[in-house]
Amino acid sequence: MSGNTFGKLFTVTTFGESHGPALGAIVDGCPPGLPLAEADLQHDLDRRRPGTSRHTTQRREPDRVRILSGVFEGVTTGTSIGLLIENTDQRSKDYSNIKDQFRPAHADYTYHHKYGVRDYRGGGRSSARETAMRVAAGAIAKRYLATRGIRVRGYMSQLGPIEIAFKSWEGVNDNPFFCPDPGRVAELETYMDELRRDQDSVGAKITVVADGLPPGLGEPVFDRLDAELAHGLMSINAVKGVEIGDGFAAVSQRGSEHRDEMAPEGFLSNHAGGVLGGISSGQPLIAHLALKPTSSITTPGRSIDRHGNPVDVVTKGRHDPCVGIRATPIAEAMMALTLMDHLLRHRAQNIDVRVTTPILR
Amino acid sequence: MSGNTFGKLFTVTTFGESHGPALGAIVDGCPPGLPLAEADLQHDLDRRRPGTSRHTTQRREPDRVRILSGVFEGVTTGTSIGLLIENTDQRSKDYSNIKDQFRPAHADYTYHHKYGVRDYRGGGRSSARETAMRVAAGAIAKRYLATRGIRVRGYMSQLGPIEIAFKSWEGVNDNPFFCPDPGRVAELETYMDELRRDQDSVGAKITVVADGLPPGLGEPVFDRLDAELAHGLMSINAVKGVEIGDGFAAVSQRGSEHRDEMAPEGFLSNHAGGVLGGISSGQPLIAHLALKPTSSITTPGRSIDRHGNPVDVVTKGRHDPCVGIRATPIAEAMMALTLMDHLLRHRAQNIDVRVTTPILR
Amino acid sequence: MSGNTFGKLFTVTTFGESHGPALGAIVDGCPPGLPLAEADLQHDLDRRRPGTSRHTTQRREPDRVRILSGVFEGVTTGTSIGLLIENTDQRSKDYSNIKDQFRPAHADYTYHHKYGVRDYRGGGRSSARETAMRVAAGAIAKRYLATRGIRVRGYMSQLGPIEIAFKSWEGVNDNPFFCPDPGRVAELETYMDELRRDQDSVGAKITVVADGLPPGLGEPVFDRLDAELAHGLMSINAVKGVEIGDGFAAVSQRGSEHRDEMAPEGFLSNHAGGVLGGISSGQPLIAHLALKPTSSITTPGRSIDRHGNPVDVVTKGRHDPCVGIRATPIAEAMMALTLMDHLLRHRAQNIDVRVTTPILR
Amino acid sequence: MSGNTFGKLFTVTTFGESHGPALGAIVDGCPPGLPLAEADLQHDLDRRRPGTSRHTTQRREPDRVRILSGVFEGVTTGTSIGLLIENTDQRSKDYSNIKDQFRPAHADYTYHHKYGVRDYRGGGRSSARETAMRVAAGAIAKRYLATRGIRVRGYMSQLGPIEIAFKSWEGVNDNPFFCPDPGRVAELETYMDELRRDQDSVGAKITVVADGLPPGLGEPVFDRLDAELAHGLMSINAVKGVEIGDGFAAVSQRGSEHRDEMAPEGFLSNHAGGVLGGISSGQPLIAHLALKPTSSITTPGRSIDRHGNPVDVVTKGRHDPCVGIRATPIAEAMMALTLMDHLLRHRAQNIDVRVTTPILR
Repeated sequence: MSGNTFGKLFTVTTFGESHGPALGAIVDGCPPGLPLAEADLQHDLDRRRPGTSRHTTQRREPDRVRILSGVFEGVTTGTSIGLLIENTDQRSKDYSNIKDQFRPAHADYTYHHKYGVRDYRGGGRSSARETAMRVAAGAIAKRYLATRGIRVRGYMSQLGPIEIAFKSWEGVNDNPFFCPDPGRVAELETYMDELRRDQDSVGAKITVVADGLPPGLGEPVFDRLDAELAHGLMSINAVKGVEIGDGFAAVSQRGSEHRDEMAPEGFLSNHAGGVLGGISSGQPLIAHLALKPTSSITTPGRSIDRHGNPVDVVTKGRHDPCVGIRATPIAEAMMALTLMDHLLRHRAQNIDVRVTTPILR
Repeated sequence: MSGNTFGKLFTVTTFGESHGPALGAIVDGCPPGLPLAEADLQHDLDRRRPGTSRHTTQRREPDRVRILSGVFEGVTTGTSIGLLIENTDQRSKDYSNIKDQFRPAHADYTYHHKYGVRDYRGGGRSSARETAMRVAAGAIAKRYLATRGIRVRGYMSQLGPIEIAFKSWEGVNDNPFFCPDPGRVAELETYMDELRRDQDSVGAKITVVADGLPPGLGEPVFDRLDAELAHGLMSINAVKGVEIGDGFAAVSQRGSEHRDEMAPEGFLSNHAGGVLGGISSGQPLIAHLALKPTSSITTPGRSIDRHGNPVDVVTKGRHDPCVGIRATPIAEAMMALTLMDHLLRHRAQNIDVRVTTPILR
Repeated sequence: MSGNTFGKLFTVTTFGESHGPALGAIVDGCPPGLPLAEADLQHDLDRRRPGTSRHTTQRREPDRVRILSGVFEGVTTGTSIGLLIENTDQRSKDYSNIKDQFRPAHADYTYHHKYGVRDYRGGGRSSARETAMRVAAGAIAKRYLATRGIRVRGYMSQLGPIEIAFKSWEGVNDNPFFCPDPGRVAELETYMDELRRDQDSVGAKITVVADGLPPGLGEPVFDRLDAELAHGLMSINAVKGVEIGDGFAAVSQRGSEHRDEMAPEGFLSNHAGGVLGGISSGQPLIAHLALKPTSSITTPGRSIDRHGNPVDVVTKGRHDPCVGIRATPIAEAMMALTLMDHLLRHRAQNIDVRVTTPILR
Repeated sequence: MSGNTFGKLFTVTTFGESHGPALGAIVDGCPPGLPLAEADLQHDLDRRRPGTSRHTTQRREPDRVRILSGVFEGVTTGTSIGLLIENTDQRSKDYSNIKDQFRPAHADYTYHHKYGVRDYRGGGRSSARETAMRVAAGAIAKRYLATRGIRVRGYMSQLGPIEIAFKSWEGVNDNPFFCPDPGRVAELETYMDELRRDQDSVGAKITVVADGLPPGLGEPVFDRLDAELAHGLMSINAVKGVEIGDGFAAVSQRGSEHRDEMAPEGFLSNHAGGVLGGISSGQPLIAHLALKPTSSITTPGRSIDRHGNPVDVVTKGRHDPCVGIRATPIAEAMMALTLMDHLLRHRAQNIDVRVTTPILR
């Protein structure tokens, strides 16, 4: 249990290095009878795929996923689902020069101290390339959740200093930023072009929302829905903060303002972000995540080598100037996986529960 | 696995309702030979205990903890440690009026939909009273971590609108707010007195820091140290946001600013908050958490009853006007439990690793 | 996760030493709404209780269990259930003489090497006294299973050299041996009286049966129902072997004899013991377990002390000359816990499955 | 957690159907720095491989394993290890006739009721083909254990009615039965030839032994070493019984005979099979397992189809007349995986323990 598995009942276990022969995953616990094809996974993989605009890394990976088991005659069988993506554009030569150096703000130094040995090619296991398998597995979760009327969607809510107010879901997938306001896309493009000129990188904020949730998902105490969601989102490369609902804004709010009152026609507000006492309320589940600027910039950085000597590190290779740009499908995947797991956990224990109290939205 | 267990190797499983006969916990996986007495746990329990200042709930609970197993002749034996705290000041009568109503922003409505039945006395299992056992278990973790030179401490960094810059660890435990600047305590007291007069509540921000960590704790991919820490902190009642290091400020930072450069004499900054690639760097581990204002205020709130009819709910009983005030020891406990678990997980796999690269701080 | 927890969804975590102040357990994952009282647990605890006949240890423990949480107004709430039994008849003085010696065939030597420290009073954590909490937790599982028409029962099928053919469930609980043939009880009593005279002990074989099971419980590959059951049964003190159905007799059977054919009116035999491919078939689930003779006999035994010097050990104290005699309720408990866990796991994933194929018995 | 993962710290998660494109596994938690090549896994895979003698199925599978991650420059990196074996000789046509029928004593009927859908080609996921990945993963465990002086070996101790007394480890791998007595091999061949003529199958008994174990492995109470081993061994296809040490023979033994006395020069016997109180004693760990006769015989069998109608089923395809013949490497793998997991678990908690008491063998 070295951390390569997510979930308790709907579990995803992954493997694969940035420059190894392949990435893979095993999805266990999927309910049987779900129609599933490789194309269902490919859709989200394509949304995450590098090299689709000038604002992301120019590494070219088709990220073509194969389903190797667990699906028979077009539906899931309930047994474990094997997934595989072969790496095709690896160019290891880019990385040999940093074999004995620790790139600042990367995992090089910490992996070295933890394991004593590391695959230094493109960050090896610590590369965000690993997130492709999250997206593939998340697509399976999304597909099942959709059969229950649950939908998970995300968008970019801030790029560097530029805050982006949510306008509409329409068009979010039609621009390279997952920007929810088509009128702001040009501004973002200009910003990114300048950033590349500066040979620098920048952070971003992503918002993920699930709607159609039943009330009742999440476990009291340690495995609250929001706690597990924070776990999942914070486990994405470069994430430094997670908020549920109003998040840090709640610090300066008063109880009379923050508490979401209820009426027969529904909740009167959603400061909580869809979770009360760690359990879904039926309102939209809302989370925000902060991604740091990628550390792979061409501006030289001070560091040490494995002997403790000072070095100047220049990170070549092909990198995203803003990892947040491709993070939206990954964040959606982690929310979908969390919800799927809790849906199964909830019904294991509570399937017999029948309440007549109306569900508020 | 209904969510009452935290940790993979150093595990804490808890039980107990706000108004039941007792709270309890089983701590499993503690290394043997650790000197441990009830007084070691009592210290932190007393820091969390209600009724010690006029700014917290007036419920009087001695929170006297008993160790029922796992300790023999003053040291841990390696077997499971049973802990028990009896509830003494319960006054159930305060709550019977809300038996069929859902207090706004409480877990009443979500527990009702999840389980169909609930202990409505003081929130039952959803009461923050449950956190007493976290603190007791966390004290065991702290004690072991101390033998490895690791120290976990917290303080209040914001009370409602009042931001509190860190001044010094000295005196943090000498005021009811865990305020790290003695000069600001009077201001906080005044603010709280006004708040009580308004019959309202407010949020808070807590900062927790661990120092003395070795590099290498945390697992790649899903069980990153920061992800598990986010899980633990977000699982505390009322928490709505978690940041590691610069957190949401990283969104608008550039890579050249955020990345922590290294030199033979140490890291040149700590924007990362002590974690790189999900693994501890050896720098201080820094997390911030946002707590929402408590929902139990005496100002009436709109809600529904179990039949869906509109009601006005007045929450009587004895409540904290700012749950953040007593949250510091709880946050410390969750960080200590997370670190303890990862210390054991790390050495299970990597105990043989020997690197000669110097450790930076 | 030092081994004090059983189950994945319906979990039991226990603590307590033979001569500590109390034993306890936390049962997590119990479905809500189940009527439950302490008396429901007490019934099986009384069946396991020492000192009820001259053939078991003369230690007098009322084993009075208290439910401390998770039950409200007579039904389970879905939250964790805290259980506590106080030890009342401990007499630690009996054990101080073996503080630095290792009783042959006990866990003294292995605990010493594992932990470096141990509670030597009555075996501490390794005492079979721990099984009281299994029985208490198992009683909760039995109670839920009963609501689904599933019944778990056991009997003694061999005492030392005396094989006991199953006659009838009636009367099994009316003799101290759980002997399923009232006509054989006198023979068993005579055997035991002689054994005590010889100051020796003997092994036993127990059979446990569940009927009313739906087909489908158990998970393919590693978590087969029979594999998890073997885990649970082998974890009982003194168990050295587990068989499912025909067990070791299958070694010399031919396929044409062993395979259970099916017909519209039902299975034509049950060599498999109710499990096919690790999944329940709907036939009675049948397991046998072998218990070794207790090692605590008054005949002196050769051993070493903690310095490696040879010693002769005489085990005083009060012991069962045949631990198998009280093992039937414990084996039932472990089967009930295993089934309960798999019932929840199964429905988490497969609740939507509808097949029209008739269920065979 | 649908049962496709084994282990807590050194975990193996598998996927793959008998007639799907590939089998795969993810091994997580392997310590870094272990020299590892595909050839290390291939050795045991070849021992298990079908079609190497006339006594096993004639399906021809090279079972060529690829390591896709977790190994870099010849050593493990500590990250998850992806393994893949492609299926090459599938011939699905053999199975289409039994699509709607349930072969007696197979998992067809139980999978059907559990999942409502199944891959009927060659048993799909329930096929023993799945054990190839256990062997591959077990080979990694063996390799690490070897660096600690621990060796896991097995042999056939009974074929149908023919009991085989252990003679010597030498030559065990030089005959198709893993027979530990070269003088008996001809007898076994004759027996098998007759059995094939009878178009029948037969059971077998396998014995697995680990030596070089340190005392201390295994966790008290539920996760005893023998309990987890029973879990692992019973999870192998066709296994119906597991014994530790004397196993069921202990039922009729007396305590004075069974208990293994100790002397400064070592244990005086090993009835316990190397485990006391669930924890390894340092003596050889000994387990026996009973395998039922394979149910796939060409003699027609009575059964029903999915509508409940009676049918006669003839199982064609290519099958092992005694699955026990190829079971030895699989049993070794499960013991190695169990030991590896417990080695890591033990040192996580107890690495600091230092005792001066001599280790007995």
